[in-house]
This record gives sequence, C-alpha cells and structure tokens, in this order.
Amino acid sequence: MTILEQMGQKAKEAARALAVAGAKKDAALLKMADAIEAHEAEILAANEKDLQAARESGMRKSMLDRLALTSARIAGMAQGVREVAAQEDPIGQVVSGFVRPNGLQIQRVRVPLGVIGIIYEARPNVTADAAALCLKAGNAVILRGGKEAIHSNTAVAEAMRQAVEEAGLPADCIQLVQDTTRASSIEMMGLTDYLDVLIPRGGAGLIRSVVENSHVPVIQTGVGNCHVYVDASADIDMAANIVFNAKTSRPSVCNAMETLLVHQDIAGQALPAIKARLDAKQVELRGCERTRAILGDCVVPAEEEDWGREYLDYILAVKVVDSFEDALAHIAAYSSGHSEAIITNDYANARAFTERVDAAAVYVNASTRFTDGGEFGCGAEIGISTQKLHARGPMGVRELTSTKFIIMGNGQIR
Amino acid sequence: MTILEQMGQKAKEAARALAVAGAKKDAALLKMADAIEAHEAEILAANEKDLQAARESGMRKSMLDRLALTSARIAGMAQGVREVAAQEDPIGQVVSGFVRPNGLQIQRVRVPLGVIGIIYEARPNVTADAAALCLKAGNAVILRGGKEAIHSNTAVAEAMRQAVEEAGLPADCIQLVQDTTRASSIEMMGLTDYLDVLIPRGGAGLIRSVVENSHVPVIQTGVGNCHVYVDASADIDMAANIVFNAKTSRPSVCNAMETLLVHQDIAGQALPAIKARLDAKQVELRGCERTRAILGDCVVPAEEEDWGREYLDYILAVKVVDSFEDALAHIAAYSSGHSEAIITNDYANARAFTERVDAAAVYVNASTRFTDGGEFGCGAEIGISTQKLHARGPMGVRELTSTKFIIMGNGQIR
Repeated sequence: MTILEQMGQKAKEAARALAVAGAKKDAALLKMADAIEAHEAEILAANEKDLQAARESGMRKSMLDRLALTSARIAGMAQGVREVAAQEDPIGQVVSGFVRPNGLQIQRVRVPLGVIGIIYEARPNVTADAAALCLKAGNAVILRGGKEAIHSNTAVAEAMRQAVEEAGLPADCIQLVQDTTRASSIEMMGLTDYLDVLIPRGGAGLIRSVVENSHVPVIQTGVGNCHVYVDASADIDMAANIVFNAKTSRPSVCNAMETLLVHQDIAGQALPAIKARLDAKQVELRGCERTRAILGDCVVPAEEEDWGREYLDYILAVKVVDSFEDALAHIAAYSSGHSEAIITNDYANARAFTERVDAAAVYVNASTRFTDGGEFGCGAEIGISTQKLHARGPMGVRELTSTKFIIMGNGQIR
Repeated sequence: MTILEQMGQKAKEAARALAVAGAKKDAALLKMADAIEAHEAEILAANEKDLQAARESGMRKSMLDRLALTSARIAGMAQGVREVAAQEDPIGQVVSGFVRPNGLQIQRVRVPLGVIGIIYEARPNVTADAAALCLKAGNAVILRGGKEAIHSNTAVAEAMRQAVEEAGLPADCIQLVQDTTRASSIEMMGLTDYLDVLIPRGGAGLIRSVVENSHVPVIQTGVGNCHVYVDASADIDMAANIVFNAKTSRPSVCNAMETLLVHQDIAGQALPAIKARLDAKQVELRGCERTRAILGDCVVPAEEEDWGREYLDYILAVKVVDSFEDALAHIAAYSSGHSEAIITNDYANARAFTERVDAAAVYVNASTRFTDGGEFGCGAEIGISTQKLHARGPMGVRELTSTKFIIMGNGQIR
C-alpha cells in the first residue's frame, strides 16, 4: 500500500464516524478555530519558512502576498471556520418523502459524499476553509496543497487535527499530503477506491489538468470568461457603472468581466462613456474594428484569441455587435459558462437573455462580481462550479453532500 | 473534424433549440411514439437482419431474446415514450428563489444538461427509452448502441428523427453513431467539447471501462452487489419471503440480492427456512463454514471472491455473522453502494442500519428489488446511479437536468 492509499483508508474510516457525528462536528469546528488562533506563533514561524524559500526562488510579489500570513489573516481563517460552524447542518435533512401504494415509506435523505480530495495552489487559507466546509458536511478530506505553502499548511492542518481529536472525532477527518511533487497529484487522480470526489482549486492550468486526467469524479471550478452585453436600450450610466465594477473591482477573480459586447445602435454613445470610467484604472482595451473606429487608435486591435481569454488583469476585450442575436451567438461561442450579464431596459431581451444564455449565473442589470457564495447568501464556498453535473455556481456546504433513499417496509416483496 | 465531432456540433445546436422548446417537446414525443408504431414493418425487418447475424455468430439464447423485437415489444417501446411525454416538464422549474438585502432577485432555475452521450449494449429498446428521457429533459442525445443491434437501432432512431422534425424541432436532437467499433466509444469518452455527460448502460465491464477512461463526466449506473441481512430479531417467515423474492424474482437485474448475511443467534432456525424456499428455484448456495455446519455439504464452500461477486444468476453467497456490527462491517467492505436491506424487529438496529449503511437505497423489511424508477414513483428511468455525485439511485427525467442562477437587478454593483 502506498502512503496515499493508507491515507485513503484512514479517511474512509474517519468518514464513517463523521457521517453520524451530528453536533460533534460543530464542536470540532469551534475547537479548530480556537486551535488556529492558539497556534498562531507556530503557524507564523512555519509561514516564514515558506516565505523565505519563496523569496529565494524569486517568487513575484503578488504571489508572495497570497502566501504571506499575518496575525490578522490567521484570525480571519479562524473566523471563517466559526462561520461554517454556525451554518445549518445539511446532513439528515429529508429532501423528499412519500408513501407508495404498497405501503413502502420512502424518504430521500441528505448524506455526506464520503471522502473528498482537494488539490490547491499557494494560498494557505484554503487549508482551513476547505477542511471546515468538508467536515461540516460530514466528509473526510485529503488536502494536497502547493509546495510553496507546505510548512504553513502543515502547521494549520496539525492544529486542526488535534482539535478534531479533542472533540472526540478521528484526527484523520483532516489529512494533509506531505508529498507536494506532481506524483502525488497524479496518484490522487487515480485513487478511485478511496476518493468520492476531487476538487481542484487554483488556476486554469491546474483545473484543466485535473479534469483531463482524473479517474475520480471531479467538480470543475472557477474559470470565468465573463461577458457584459450592453443592449440597445441600456441606461448608459448604469452600463458604465456596472462595466467599471465588473472589470476593475477585483480583476484577478473568476467572476470579473473579460469581454464587453455593445449593440451597434448604442455603441457611439456607450463606448466613450464606458472608456471614460475605465481610463481611471488604466484598463487596456482590445477592440474590434468598429470599436476602434469609435474610440480611436488607443484601442489595441483584438485578435481572435482575445475573445476566449481570461485576462484576470486590467485588460478588456470589446466588440460591437449587430444585434441581440449576435451577442447571444458570441457568448455561446466563447463563454466558459460562469457569469454573463445583459444591461437592458427591454423586457423581451431581458427574458430571452436569461432563458437562452447557458451559464451558472445569468444577470440582468447587475455586475457579474456577485457570483459568490457569500453574495448569494449560501455562506462560505468551496469554489464556483462551471460544470453542469451535481453543482453549478457557488458551492457551499450543501453541495458537498449526496442523498440516499431510505425505505421502510413491513415485508413488501415485488 | 471527425464524424463524431460533427455530430457533437449538430447536437449542441439542437440542444440550444431544445432548451427553450417548451411544449413542443411533448408534441415531438407523441409523434415519436406514433412513428415507432407506424414504422413497425421496417423496424422488424431491420431487427431480423440483426437476429440473423447474431444467430450466425452463435449468440446465446438469452442474448438473442434481449435483441429480438416483436409487434408487442415495439408497442411497448411506443408506450414507454408516451409515458415520458405524460410526465411533468422539469425545465424552468424554480428550485429556490429569494431577494438579497441589496435588492438582487435571485432564482435557481432548472435547465437541461445540454448534450448527453449514451453508450449501451444489445437491447434496441434503450434507443427509444434513452432518446425520450433525454428529449423530455431538453437534452440532445448521441446514442452509441452495440453492433449486434445496429440495424434495429438505426430503424428506431430514423423513425424518431423524422417525428422530431415534423414537430418543428431539429432532427439532430437524436443522433445514432453508425460506427460500432471500439474506436467510437473511445472517441466519445474524449468528446469534452461537445458532451456534457456520458452514461454507460450495460454490463459491469462496459461501465468500468467508461468510468476509467472517460474525460467527459460520467454517471455510473447499475452494478449491484446487494445484501440482505437477517437480524437476530427478524420474523423468519418475512425473512424467507424477502430473500426468496430478492434473489429469484429476476436474478439478472442489478437490484437482485447477491449475499445473505444471518445473525448467529437466528441462523439455526432461519437458514433452513430460507433454504427451503430457495430450493424451489434450485438456487446454488455458497456459504461460510458456519452456514455449511447448519445446512450441510449441499452448500458450496464460499471463497473470498464470492463476497464481491454480482452473480446475476441463481447463486447466493451466505454468511453467518457474529453481530449486527459484523454485518455492517461486511456490507461496508463489499457493498457496491446500490441496495442493502435489513430484516429486523429491533427499532435501534433498524435506525442504525439506515443511518450507517452507505448505499443508494437502504431498506428495512422489504425486498431490494424495489430500487427502480417506476417503483419509487419517479417514472421511467435512464439507469440507477451508484455514484454519489449529481444523482444517486434511480435516475428519471429530473436527474437529466442541471440548474442555473438567474439574477435580476437594477444596477447593483459590488
């Protein structure tokens, strides 16, 4: 048995205990939060080791910032875990129930998924977030973080494991993979005997690699090539306001907008107004010919590949479309199925847009930036699913569960 | 572009029309049913070609029987399609909805999955069943049946395609792959740009191969190593009756029982009573040492591998267990997560069994044979999911859908 198989077996055993742990889970979560704060010194010391190695390897500043922990960030992690504890426990909820003509009483009941694998990149806060969400939903978790954060992740995971054990649950509810080479990711993708689901959290490259190579069922998260379409009847101030927010409030996240589509009838007025707002943040525009005819040579000519790019930066692709149908066709061709918005005052187009656009979140007159578990009122999220199976959109605790049928009879045969 | 990629592209286009087709779908389903009946002569002639080839290749009788169509079976296919038409349309249903403090109106709405691939074996009725269920849920389908049934499947699919077109929907809502070599299955498993889901329907070998090799998300169906555990407090007549039903009413299906577990305190009385019933159908028993001590040498000694086998035949593995906990441990070790039953009159054990056994359907005092869409009141089924993601247990029309969030604002930014 390999180390990962042994971890898988321990996780399965832990999951059996967790599935019927009831309120002990919340007790464990509260202890986990306390432990993260109590071990602040060790966690900061471990993080310093990671930071030093990262600096020596020449990591760029924005990545260093994601990796760095502070007293405030550690308090934030603990607070996140407490918020998960405060959520409703989905396990045991009766989703539906009925009695059949033959007297069988059938209930569909919410149960944990079992064992969840998470493969993630540099941010150590994912260690606490993911462990808390999985545990709340009754699942054991095997965490495989990036090598850059291995000392930080180990310190956080150790604190949480002790806390889980103090709460009377198996420490192996939470396990961290120590091997951070590519080999451990690949082995996890084949661990079908032990893992019920694998969730990659990170950049597009990581997600693509897991989706393509995993034999364990995957929930695909997070790639967002989001469009905002400004319809002919749009309120131009509202359009400029929403585009500015969707593009610039946090360009590095998956619900940020990447392409602006503008109806030709309004482009002459709308584009200059939108550009005026975006200029304040020095957003680079890459536009079609008609966009450049309106806005001038300051707009970089867009290449075909610009329509499919998730820039995650202060760059925006811009296209003038002939019609509402053209906008729909462009979105159908290039959307990653994350978040798409129309700005319009036309009832029929608003209705048709929400019906016909195939994405996890479809907006009328609001910023794509709202696609988020917290903003949708479902609490902390493990990611935003862009696939259609199982979960779509922000995934909270409930999306980390399955159901089973319980059938109570008194001797029925078929 | 390969032929399958072209089919995928046509399916995606058809799916866009189907997603907003509303009541046209039911009109198409009724026309499909009529067309299947109207084309009876062609379908029977095509089936005769398949049967002749099968006889020449030496296909065994039970398989020939599954392949053969008759007037009555064709009428049954048409009736099945009509029953799907009569079901409620899940598309557009609002699963949940609320208003956020910032005024955003958020609804979670049921939408089609998109394009579904089905890989199946010899039974031509799957062609009609699967196409009807997919279409009702607003999905385009690419059907890849077995080579043994290619002429029958083509005739059924052609009749349905014409009917769909007459109803004003694209014929490509339903497409049948003509290449029945292994190459087409393998290509479908990699068709991630076009297929949203792949569902294998058939034997354990087919399902394993698809689960292991597909890059398209898979819903795993149908393998059932089902246990019936006779607890110390069981009513022996009820136990014998349920075991007889679960094992012999239709041994070839996935919800048939494969292993009998009996508590040691009741084994001396229960095993002879159960054996007496099973003898009427000449069921071969493969038992542990204690079973053989009670029932004698007519019981074949069970090997380790017997506990994991899905016999699908008049064979039953039998084990005497020390305790309720032992029964749970055996089931946890060998269950395929399909259907598991306890026969008991002990309240605490009934409760613990339903809580602690991890399977799609968990029974108290009833036969495992009820795990079925029709028996659970959810209409025709596309299969019985034994995985935990997306759908678990019998999958009907609703399980062939996803959801999306629709968010209506009036200028909200974050």
